[in-house]
Amino acid sequence: MPQVRTETDSIGSIELPASCLYGIQTERARQNFMITGVRLSQFPNLVSALAMVKSAAARANGEIAALDTHKAQAIVEVCDEIIAGHHHAHFVVDMIQGGAGTSTNMNANEVIANLALVKLGHKPGSYDHLHPNDDVNHGQSTNDVYPTAVRLAVLSHVAPLREALARLKAAFEHKASEFAGIAKVGRTQLQDAVPMSLGAEFRSFAVTLGEDIDRIHEIGRLLTEINLGGTAIGTRINAEAGYDARAITHLAKISGFDLKQASDLIEASSDLGGFVTFSGILKRVAVKLSKICNDLRLLSSGPRAGLGEIILPPVQAGSSIMPGKVNPVIPEVVNQVCYQVIGNDLTITMAAEAGQLQLNAMEPVVAYNLLNSQTILVNAIDVLTDKCVTGIEADADRCAALLDNSLVLVTALAPHIGYDAAAKIAKQALVSDCSIRQVAAESGVLPIAQLTEVLSPNAMLAQGNHEDFNTGECDEGTCACQARD
Amino acid sequence: MPQVRTETDSIGSIELPASCLYGIQTERARQNFMITGVRLSQFPNLVSALAMVKSAAARANGEIAALDTHKAQAIVEVCDEIIAGHHHAHFVVDMIQGGAGTSTNMNANEVIANLALVKLGHKPGSYDHLHPNDDVNHGQSTNDVYPTAVRLAVLSHVAPLREALARLKAAFEHKASEFAGIAKVGRTQLQDAVPMSLGAEFRSFAVTLGEDIDRIHEIGRLLTEINLGGTAIGTRINAEAGYDARAITHLAKISGFDLKQASDLIEASSDLGGFVTFSGILKRVAVKLSKICNDLRLLSSGPRAGLGEIILPPVQAGSSIMPGKVNPVIPEVVNQVCYQVIGNDLTITMAAEAGQLQLNAMEPVVAYNLLNSQTILVNAIDVLTDKCVTGIEADADRCAALLDNSLVLVTALAPHIGYDAAAKIAKQALVSDCSIRQVAAESGVLPIAQLTEVLSPNAMLAQGNHEDFNTGECDEGTCACQARD
Amino acid sequence: MPQVRTETDSIGSIELPASCLYGIQTERARQNFMITGVRLSQFPNLVSALAMVKSAAARANGEIAALDTHKAQAIVEVCDEIIAGHHHAHFVVDMIQGGAGTSTNMNANEVIANLALVKLGHKPGSYDHLHPNDDVNHGQSTNDVYPTAVRLAVLSHVAPLREALARLKAAFEHKASEFAGIAKVGRTQLQDAVPMSLGAEFRSFAVTLGEDIDRIHEIGRLLTEINLGGTAIGTRINAEAGYDARAITHLAKISGFDLKQASDLIEASSDLGGFVTFSGILKRVAVKLSKICNDLRLLSSGPRAGLGEIILPPVQAGSSIMPGKVNPVIPEVVNQVCYQVIGNDLTITMAAEAGQLQLNAMEPVVAYNLLNSQTILVNAIDVLTDKCVTGIEADADRCAALLDNSLVLVTALAPHIGYDAAAKIAKQALVSDCSIRQVAAESGVLPIAQLTEVLSPNAMLAQGNHEDFNTGECDEGTCACQARD
Amino acid sequence: MPQVRTETDSIGSIELPASCLYGIQTERARQNFMITGVRLSQFPNLVSALAMVKSAAARANGEIAALDTHKAQAIVEVCDEIIAGHHHAHFVVDMIQGGAGTSTNMNANEVIANLALVKLGHKPGSYDHLHPNDDVNHGQSTNDVYPTAVRLAVLSHVAPLREALARLKAAFEHKASEFAGIAKVGRTQLQDAVPMSLGAEFRSFAVTLGEDIDRIHEIGRLLTEINLGGTAIGTRINAEAGYDARAITHLAKISGFDLKQASDLIEASSDLGGFVTFSGILKRVAVKLSKICNDLRLLSSGPRAGLGEIILPPVQAGSSIMPGKVNPVIPEVVNQVCYQVIGNDLTITMAAEAGQLQLNAMEPVVAYNLLNSQTILVNAIDVLTDKCVTGIEADADRCAALLDNSLVLVTALAPHIGYDAAAKIAKQALVSDCSIRQVAAESGVLPIAQLTEVLSPNAMLAQGNHEDFNTGECDEGTCACQARD
Repeated sequence: MPQVRTETDSIGSIELPASCLYGIQTERARQNFMITGVRLSQFPNLVSALAMVKSAAARANGEIAALDTHKAQAIVEVCDEIIAGHHHAHFVVDMIQGGAGTSTNMNANEVIANLALVKLGHKPGSYDHLHPNDDVNHGQSTNDVYPTAVRLAVLSHVAPLREALARLKAAFEHKASEFAGIAKVGRTQLQDAVPMSLGAEFRSFAVTLGEDIDRIHEIGRLLTEINLGGTAIGTRINAEAGYDARAITHLAKISGFDLKQASDLIEASSDLGGFVTFSGILKRVAVKLSKICNDLRLLSSGPRAGLGEIILPPVQAGSSIMPGKVNPVIPEVVNQVCYQVIGNDLTITMAAEAGQLQLNAMEPVVAYNLLNSQTILVNAIDVLTDKCVTGIEADADRCAALLDNSLVLVTALAPHIGYDAAAKIAKQALVSDCSIRQVAAESGVLPIAQLTEVLSPNAMLAQGNHEDFNTGECDEGTCACQARD
Repeated sequence: MPQVRTETDSIGSIELPASCLYGIQTERARQNFMITGVRLSQFPNLVSALAMVKSAAARANGEIAALDTHKAQAIVEVCDEIIAGHHHAHFVVDMIQGGAGTSTNMNANEVIANLALVKLGHKPGSYDHLHPNDDVNHGQSTNDVYPTAVRLAVLSHVAPLREALARLKAAFEHKASEFAGIAKVGRTQLQDAVPMSLGAEFRSFAVTLGEDIDRIHEIGRLLTEINLGGTAIGTRINAEAGYDARAITHLAKISGFDLKQASDLIEASSDLGGFVTFSGILKRVAVKLSKICNDLRLLSSGPRAGLGEIILPPVQAGSSIMPGKVNPVIPEVVNQVCYQVIGNDLTITMAAEAGQLQLNAMEPVVAYNLLNSQTILVNAIDVLTDKCVTGIEADADRCAALLDNSLVLVTALAPHIGYDAAAKIAKQALVSDCSIRQVAAESGVLPIAQLTEVLSPNAMLAQGNHEDFNTGECDEGTCACQARD
Repeated sequence: MPQVRTETDSIGSIELPASCLYGIQTERARQNFMITGVRLSQFPNLVSALAMVKSAAARANGEIAALDTHKAQAIVEVCDEIIAGHHHAHFVVDMIQGGAGTSTNMNANEVIANLALVKLGHKPGSYDHLHPNDDVNHGQSTNDVYPTAVRLAVLSHVAPLREALARLKAAFEHKASEFAGIAKVGRTQLQDAVPMSLGAEFRSFAVTLGEDIDRIHEIGRLLTEINLGGTAIGTRINAEAGYDARAITHLAKISGFDLKQASDLIEASSDLGGFVTFSGILKRVAVKLSKICNDLRLLSSGPRAGLGEIILPPVQAGSSIMPGKVNPVIPEVVNQVCYQVIGNDLTITMAAEAGQLQLNAMEPVVAYNLLNSQTILVNAIDVLTDKCVTGIEADADRCAALLDNSLVLVTALAPHIGYDAAAKIAKQALVSDCSIRQVAAESGVLPIAQLTEVLSPNAMLAQGNHEDFNTGECDEGTCACQARD
Repeated sequence: MPQVRTETDSIGSIELPASCLYGIQTERARQNFMITGVRLSQFPNLVSALAMVKSAAARANGEIAALDTHKAQAIVEVCDEIIAGHHHAHFVVDMIQGGAGTSTNMNANEVIANLALVKLGHKPGSYDHLHPNDDVNHGQSTNDVYPTAVRLAVLSHVAPLREALARLKAAFEHKASEFAGIAKVGRTQLQDAVPMSLGAEFRSFAVTLGEDIDRIHEIGRLLTEINLGGTAIGTRINAEAGYDARAITHLAKISGFDLKQASDLIEASSDLGGFVTFSGILKRVAVKLSKICNDLRLLSSGPRAGLGEIILPPVQAGSSIMPGKVNPVIPEVVNQVCYQVIGNDLTITMAAEAGQLQLNAMEPVVAYNLLNSQTILVNAIDVLTDKCVTGIEADADRCAALLDNSLVLVTALAPHIGYDAAAKIAKQALVSDCSIRQVAAESGVLPIAQLTEVLSPNAMLAQGNHEDFNTGECDEGTCACQARD
C-alpha cells in the first residue's frame, strides 16, 4: 500500500500522506497561510458550525435528489461526528487566511469528503466516488457557507456570555444587599461629593451589566439572519430549486437557533454590518467592565495608604520582592482583556470597511477577532465573578471614618442657607481642618436642632436610597453642633 | 452707570462688563478652557436642550412651590427664547472642558439668571433677586442636567440622520430599478465571479442602509432614558418630593421625546453606555457608507483605463494641472467623514472607559464627538444623495462588453460536468485568450444546444434575481458554440 | 459696473459677485463640501503655507523665464501679504473635502490670481491677463503643492509643541526640586509598595516628557522632505528644467525650514507615512500626558477621603449643587484632549491606509486631524503648565502620615530574614492592625538596633534617590522597636 | 517516594506533583488567569529573555558575593539551557495576566530554582537550599525584570522584521527593473491621470518600505535603554552596590544587544512610551503594506473585467464553486495581518494610558500584542515576498492598450495651449469617444509635428523617469495626428 497519494488541481499536483484526511486545497492553504499558528481547530465552535452547515446542505440536497442518498447519508454521519467533537484536528488552516474563507470551506469539504469516503469503503482522495466540491459543497459557495458558519459560531458564544454576565450581575447584587447599610463618601471626579451607601455603589455595577445582557440578546438576534442558499455572491447559482428553504430548516434544527434567510442575498453576501454591530456591543461591555474594574481597584487601594473601603480576596502573592504585598490581579487581568476586545473591535471595523463589491475578502480576520473577543470576555467575566467579586469584603469602619471626616454634608445645607453661604462654610472647614458640623454650628446659620437634622447622613441617604440603608452606623453622639448646645 | 460689575465666588473676584449675560463661573471656564475654539454656541441643539431642561425644572419647581412663581415664570420665558434660537451667543465655554459639564451647566444657569433678572427689571449680576444656583439650578446638579441635555441634543439629531439615510436609500432604490436590466460581471475579491445585474448591485446598497435606519431607531430609543431628578450622583439630594416626575413630564412635552427616568439613578449618573452604543451604530453606518463609496469610486474608475461601468455626475474640475480630469470628489469626501466618525468613536470609547466611581468627568468630549459625528454624517449623506447618487448613469455597453469577454459563465457548467472539468475549461480559456463558450464547445463536454442554454447569462441572472432582470441585452447570436454546429 | 461676473469651466458656468476674490473652482468646492463648517481660513498656518509654496514657485518660474516677470512679481507680492496674515478670509473651502486637496490648491490659485489681477489693474476674473492654473499654478500640481503645504503647516506647529512641552517639563522639574525632601508611599497597582520621595515622582513626569521633546524633533525632521517639483503623481510633467531646485531653495528661505526634495517623487506623491509617524508621536505624547493627568487627579483626590498627597490650585467652582467643591478640571480637560488626539490618530491611520495607486485622495482629512491635534495639544499643555502644575502644593504631613502608617518598610527586611519570613510579618501586621516595626520587633527576627537601621525609610530612600532626599522628616522617636529596648 | 509535594505561601498551601518544575506562585497564576490559553511558552523569545536576565543577575550577584558561588553557578547553567531552548514547556502562565508580570517573573524564578535544585542534587520544592525569591530573584523585582525581559524579546524580533522588509524591498526593486520599460496609465483617485512606467510604480513600493527599515532601526534602538537594577519602582531597594552595572554588562553580552541603564529608574519603571512608539512604527509599516497590497489586488483585478495590468502568481484555487477562479489570497492575508497589527496598536495604546503612579499593571497585554504584531508581520511579509511579489508578471500589452486608449496625454498640451483650451479638448475626446491625438489634431491648436512630439508618452515618461524607461513600446505609427498630414 502506498505511503502517499497525489492530488491535482488546475495549479498543479501535491503529494500527501495516503491517509491524510484533508486534501490538496487544504494543504496549499496550510502552506500559504503560516501566519498566526492558530488553526481552525482551536475554535471548535467554528468547526462544528461548518459541519452543521454541511450536514444541513447534504440533507436538503438528498431530499430534492440533487445528491445521491448514500452520499448524503455518509456526509451527514460524518458531520454528526464532527459536531460531537471528533476529527477537529484535521482542520488545520490558519484562522487568518486570504481568500474570504475559501480555504476554511475547502478544508471542511475535503475532510468531510475523505471521512465519508472511508465510511463508504474507499480510500481518502478517491474523489470520483464522492467529491469535496461536487458533493460536499453541492449547491453551496464559500460566499454563503463561510458567513453562515461564522454566524453560527458567534451565536454559540452568545448564551455563554449572557450567562457569565448574569452570574456577575447576581454577584454584584448579592454584595449590594450585603453592603446596603454601609454609608460612605460618594465621589465625583475623584473629589468627595455627597454621602451614599456602598450597597448603592455595588448595585449600580449590577444594573449597568443588566443593560448589557439585554443588548447582547437583541443584537445577537440580528445574526440569525443568514445567507445560506445564496451561493456565489447571492445569485443562488447552482443551487437547485427547493434546496435553500430545506437547508435552512435543517440548519435551524441542528443548531438550535431560530434562523431565517436574508431578504436580499446579494447584500447579505458582502455585508459584515451584523458583525460590526455585535463587536460594538462587546466593546460596550468591555468599556463598562473596565470601568468597574478600575473602580474595584481604586476602592480597594491600600491596604493602608489608599481608599481602602473594600477588600478584594487575595488570590496570589503580589510581588517577587515586596513580601506580603497583594495586588488586585483579577480586576487587572479583566482590564487587559477589555483593552484586547477594544483593539479587536478596531481590527473588525477596518476589515469590514475593506469589503469590495460583492464580497468582503477580509472576513476571516473578522471571525478570528470576534470569536476571540467572545471567548476571552467570558473567561474574564467568570474569573472576575468567582475569584474576586463573590469574595469582596467591606471595611465598614474605614467607610464611616472617611465619611465622618469629610465635608460632603455641606450640600444639604445649601437649600436652607443658599449656595454661596454654604460654599463659604465648606471652604472654612477645609482651611481650618474642622468638620462641616463644627463650622456650621459656630457660624449660627441655622438653629442647632435643625442643623443636626439637616446634616444627618442618614437623612441624605434615605432621600436617595431609602430602600437599602440601615440607620445607625454613623455615631452622631460626639457631634460638635450638639456639644455646643 | 458703571461699565463693569464684580462677581465673587469662594475662589475670588472677577470683573465683568456690567451688561455681560454670563457670570463669574462662565468667565472662569472660558479662560480655563481655551482649547478648541469651538464654543457651546456652535452646537445650537445642545444650547436649546439645556434651556429645555431648565424650563422643565423651573415649571416643576414652581408647581411644587419650591420656587417662587414669578421667578419660575421668568426662567421659563427666557428658556423659551433660547429654545427659539435667541441668546445662543452667550454660551461661550469651549466644548472640550474639564469639570464633567459643570461649566456648561453654569453657563446656562448664569445666562438664564441674568436674562431673567433683566426681564424682572434688575441688573445682570444682582443674584440676590434670582440666583443661578439657588433658583435656575434649583433641585438640579450638573450630574443630572448635563447628561440629560446631551441626550436631548443627540436625540434631536436622530431623526435627521434617519431621514438623510432614507433619502439616500430611496436614491439607490431608484437607481436599482433604473439599472435592473443591465447585466454585468459580479466580482469577489476584485476577480470576475458570476454574472449579476447592475440593478442588484445598487439594490444591495439600498438594503444595507435600510438596516441601519432600523438600528438607529432602536438604539436611539435607549437615549430617552434620562437621569433628571437624580441631582448629585443620583442621590436625589436637594430635590424636593414631587419634583422629578413633574420635571420629566414637562421635559417630554417641551422636547417632544418620549422620556422616562432611569430606574437606577446612581448607575445612570456615571454610565455612558448609551452614548458608546449609539456611537457604535454611527460607526456601523460609517463603515457601510465608506464601503459603498469605495465601490462607487471603483465602478466609476476610468474614464478609459478603469472599470467604467458607471459614470458619476461631474461636480467640479478634478485637477489644477490635468485638464478635463474629473474626480469622484463626493464619494471621497464621504469616505473621509466616515474615517472621522470612526476616529470620534474611539475618542468616545476611551472617554467612556475613563469614568471613575460616581461620575464620568470626560463626558464633554463624548458630547462633542457624538454631536460632531451626527452633524457631519448627515451633511455627508445629503451631499452623497444630492450631488452624486441621483445623477449616476450606467454605461450599459461597457457592462455588456466586460461580461461578454469574461470567463464568469464557467460556473454554470460545473453542475453538469463537475468542478474539476469545469476548472480545466476555465484555465484553458484564460491561457488561450478564448471565451468559455468557445473552449467548452470545442471540448465537447456537452451537446451544443444544452451548452447554449446552460451558458446563457440570462438563465443565471434569472435564477438569482428574477425580479429585476430584463432579458435580451446579451446578444448570443455570435456565440461560438452555436457557430460550431 | 456689473454686480456679478460669470466664470466658466468645462462643467458649466457660475455667477459670482464681481469683486469676489475666489473663482468658479472655489465656489463649486464650497458648495460641494458643506461638511464640517470648518474652513481653510481657520487654519492660518496652512493658508500661509500655501502662499509660501506659490511664492516660491513664482520666483522659480520667473527666474527661468517660465513666467513673465511682472506676473511673477505680482504673485510674489500677493503671497507676501497672505503670509503676513491678510486675505485669509477668502480661503473658504471646508477642511474636509474630496479631490485630494485640489480645491484647496484651486482656492489658493484663484485668490492669488485675483489679488494679483487687482494689483496689476485688472478686474477679478480677467484670467486672460493672469490665470490661476496657467500662471499661479505654473509647473505645479495639487499632487505636489498640497502635500508640501500641509507639511509646512505641520512643521510650523512643531516648535510650539516642543516649547510647550519644555515649559511643562521645567514646571515639573521645579516641583521635583521643591518636593525633594518629602518622603511618601510609592505605589504599584494602587497598592502600597516601597517608600519614595514626592520629588522623585514629579521628576519622573519631567523625564518622561523630555523624551517626547527629543522624539518630536527627530520625527518632525522627516517632514522636511517634500515632493515639490513632482507635479502630477511625481512625473515632473509640465515643470520646466531648473524649476524645482530653485523652487525648493526659495521655499526653504521663505519658510525657514531646512527642506529637501524627496528622492523618489512617485513614492512621495502617494505616501502619507510621514504624517502617520508624526501623528503616532503625538499619540505617544497624549498617552503620557493622560497618564500624568490621571496621576495628578489621583494624588490630589480628596480633599478628605482620598489620597490627598498634593493640592492642585483651584481654578473654578466645581459644582452647581455641592458648595465649595473644587475639581481637578485642568487635568480633566487635558485627558479629554488626549483622547481626541488618539481618536484623530485613528482617523489619520485609516485615511492613510485608504490611499490608492499614485495618490491618497484622503489627505485633507489627514491634514485636518493632524493640524487639529497639534493645536489642541499645545493649548492643553499650556493650560496644564500655567493653571495647574506651577501652582501644585504638597501636603507633606499627609505624605508622612500615610507612610508612617503603611507596611511598605517590610521589603527592607527581606534581604536579612528572607522573603517568606518577611511575608509573614507583613501579613501579621496587616491583620493585627500594627506597624511593621512593632511586629518585627516583637518577633525578634533581628536585634533591635539593626532593625531600627534597616527599617529607616531614610535608608531606603537614600539608596535609590540620594540626590534629592533630605533626612529628618520621619520622626522615629516613637518607634515601637526602640521602645521595646 | 511521594507523588506530591506541598508548597505554602502567605495565602495558603497547594499540592503539586512532586516533580513539578514550577511552584505555588506559578500554579496560582495558572489557575487565576485562564483567559486566552496562550502560554508564555508560545513566545520562546520572551522565555529566553527571562533566562538571560536571570543569568545576568546571578552572575552579577555572584561576583559581588551577594549570592553563593555554587548557587549562582547552578542558576547560570540552568539559564543557559533555557536560552538554548530547553524547559520552555514549564512556562505555563497565560500571556494575559494580572499583576504587572509578577506571575511571569515568578514562573521563571520557580522553574529556574527547581531546575537548579535538581542540578545540585535536591528535590524540586526544597527552597531552603535555593530559593526562587531570595536567590533567583536576588536584587531584582518584577518591576525591573519584566520590562527588561519584554524589551529583550521585542528587540529579538527587530532584526528579523528588518530583514523581512529588506527582502521584500529587494523583490520590489527587482520587479521595478524588470518592468522599467512598460508604459502605463498613472492614476490618481482611481481616475486616469498621466503616463508613467510600471517600473516606477513598483519602485515606489520599494522606496516606501526602505524608509520603514530605517525607522524600525532608529526606534528599535530606544528599546535598548532598560531599567534593570531599579528593583521595586526604580528605588534600587535590596540591590547591593555594584550589582546593576555588572548585571547590565552581563546582559548585554548574553543578549548581544547594546544595552544601557535608563537615566531615571523611577520614570523607567512606569513608562511604556518606548513600546507605544515601537508599536506606532509597526502600525506605520502595516498601513503601508496594506496600501501596497490593495494596489496589487487592484492592478491584478480581472482576469478579464478588471485592470489586469499585472498577474499575481496563482497559489491555490480561489473558489469552492467557481471553477478556475484564482484570487489574490496572499495580498489578502497580508491586509488582514495589517488590520490585526493596527488593532493591536490600539490595545497597546489603551494599556499604556492605563498606567498609574509608579507602575503600569497592564504591561502583559502590551507585551502580548507587541510580540504578536512582530511575529505575524514577519510571517506576512515573508509570504508576500516569496509567494507573491517574486512571481508577479506584467501584462505589457494590456498596459499599452489602456494607455493608448486613454486621455492622459492631454496634460502635456496645457503648457502649449493653456489649461482651459486643453480641458475642452479632453472633454470633447471623452464625449466623442475619440483619442486626444485625434481631437487635438482636428482642432488645429498646434502644428501636427509639434503635436506629435508633445503627445508622445515617451517624452512625458522620459521627463520624470528617464532612468528606467525604454523607448519604443508605444507604437505611434498609426497616430491619427500623423495620419492627418
